[in-house]
Amino acid sequence: MSLQDFHFYVAMAGTVAFAGSAVLSVADRKVDLFTAVVLGLITAVGGGTIRDVILDEPVFWLSSLSYLWVALATSVVTFFGSEFLGRHFVHRLFLYVDAFAVAMFAVEATGKVWRLDVGVPIVPVILGVVTAIGGGLIRDVLIGRPTLLMSRDLYAIPVVIGCTVLALVLAFAPEYRVHGSIVCLVVTFGLRAAAIRWDLQVPEWGTMGFKKKQAAS
Amino acid sequence: MSLQDFHFYVAMAGTVAFAGSAVLSVADRKVDLFTAVVLGLITAVGGGTIRDVILDEPVFWLSSLSYLWVALATSVVTFFGSEFLGRHFVHRLFLYVDAFAVAMFAVEATGKVWRLDVGVPIVPVILGVVTAIGGGLIRDVLIGRPTLLMSRDLYAIPVVIGCTVLALVLAFAPEYRVHGSIVCLVVTFGLRAAAIRWDLQVPEWGTMGFKKKQAAS
Amino acid sequence: MSLQDFHFYVAMAGTVAFAGSAVLSVADRKVDLFTAVVLGLITAVGGGTIRDVILDEPVFWLSSLSYLWVALATSVVTFFGSEFLGRHFVHRLFLYVDAFAVAMFAVEATGKVWRLDVGVPIVPVILGVVTAIGGGLIRDVLIGRPTLLMSRDLYAIPVVIGCTVLALVLAFAPEYRVHGSIVCLVVTFGLRAAAIRWDLQVPEWGTMGFKKKQAAS
Repeated sequence: MSLQDFHFYVAMAGTVAFAGSAVLSVADRKVDLFTAVVLGLITAVGGGTIRDVILDEPVFWLSSLSYLWVALATSVVTFFGSEFLGRHFVHRLFLYVDAFAVAMFAVEATGKVWRLDVGVPIVPVILGVVTAIGGGLIRDVLIGRPTLLMSRDLYAIPVVIGCTVLALVLAFAPEYRVHGSIVCLVVTFGLRAAAIRWDLQVPEWGTMGFKKKQAAS
Repeated sequence: MSLQDFHFYVAMAGTVAFAGSAVLSVADRKVDLFTAVVLGLITAVGGGTIRDVILDEPVFWLSSLSYLWVALATSVVTFFGSEFLGRHFVHRLFLYVDAFAVAMFAVEATGKVWRLDVGVPIVPVILGVVTAIGGGLIRDVLIGRPTLLMSRDLYAIPVVIGCTVLALVLAFAPEYRVHGSIVCLVVTFGLRAAAIRWDLQVPEWGTMGFKKKQAAS
Repeated sequence: MSLQDFHFYVAMAGTVAFAGSAVLSVADRKVDLFTAVVLGLITAVGGGTIRDVILDEPVFWLSSLSYLWVALATSVVTFFGSEFLGRHFVHRLFLYVDAFAVAMFAVEATGKVWRLDVGVPIVPVILGVVTAIGGGLIRDVLIGRPTLLMSRDLYAIPVVIGCTVLALVLAFAPEYRVHGSIVCLVVTFGLRAAAIRWDLQVPEWGTMGFKKKQAAS
């Protein structure tokens, strides 16, 4: 299996996880198949779409239809199998695959924008984060749920750390580009997996307005 | 009247319906004229804007200003005439014109993207749906109302059916392109009009989580 | 100090005000540093990003990284200093600088689009308004707060007036381009500053549904 093959399979697994967890997240609302498919598609390709539009690159799914077909099929299967797929251990599996996909899409996007030499060093980090969490943000807005920005879950912060570390490697030790990418992928996934495993959250003292609240009490 | 003229007049009627029903939908909230105009404009041109940006085509209203002037004028007139225009039978008329416009914009967008040969066959269907419902989604998000994705109204599903049938025609019987477009337009409009006329909704058994709810009771 | 220098400093002051007031606006919610930075960045560059994407121009912050660094630094400083910066008089200062920045970005965008000769005269006005309020709209949607469209604050209306007057000057008296821009800037800022100073709002009779409400009582 070549590196390109590996990459393709991980991207597809990530698309499955993105679409599947999006549909599962509305399993308790009375949504129809159409809504499930729209949410699955948007979550899977939304972040990359924003990235490509901002870069004025061709939107990736206009030519790589696999992303759409896989997201579509996953959404349909999850819609009909939500009872089974929503079970605790399957749902957790989705979360871990989602964590790996988020890490991979983010690291990959940061590396790609860096190679295009656009706005180095800050734009690659920003677009890495946008790629990873953009789809989820649109989904949450469309279903009227508080976005992950307003939650204390450790979802985006591992991504920021991973992309930033990668940017530092690319800036100061570009000869370690490949190793750096792998390390950042592992670090991002590791942090997110730990957050899932032990229900880690941003501690209260890490939030704004903490002191104010404390002083008031 | 040439076909192009016919198309122009229907597009303008659709713009009127989009903008007018957007403004009527906030008639009971205390919004000012500016808000009414913004909502009217976004609803009228939002979906097509997303489509053009994704395709990297020139955004249609940058050169066809009629869409903007008509949406602007409609929003102003509806703002001041909301008492009369909000009456039951006028409002219903708006809904039917809106249904026809949605059908026409969707069928037209699917056909156009197919001719551009972008991501055939799935991308034309997706962008047809985006063109038809994108503006309404942005409007609902901006006014803080549940989007149509979370409602059980038969609004988007007729569009999906129409665009999909058209894609099948274009794929397997391209010689019937014109007839197919007309049939899809009629089918989409017919389904939506029936939904308006008889208050049709997605039945409960067609939603996810239905079995779960039933088992729990 | 050249005109270009002046413009740069005002743009940076505006970026500081946009990012700072965005972070202050969530000071009472328990958001973490990441969320503060995302909201600061989006509020500062969101409107201009939408404008550039619609015009199919290169997104301005891909090459002018100062906007990003300044918004990033401001968000971090505001996060840690929210107790001091949130005090009444500092907060008011932010509001006035924000008002000046809104006015400047709007007038500048209208002028720029007019020079590009895109969709004159209505598109320059629309994109001026989008540039000024787009970032704030995205921010409010992401934090789940009613957007400024649903409030009666005099925020966007001064912008509309300023951009419209500038469009009239550019259309009928283009020789007064420079003077017109300055006057529009002053008028927009003046109206907004008056609204901040005296808590001006859109009067109830200026809203839709007012007569209906009155008749019912």
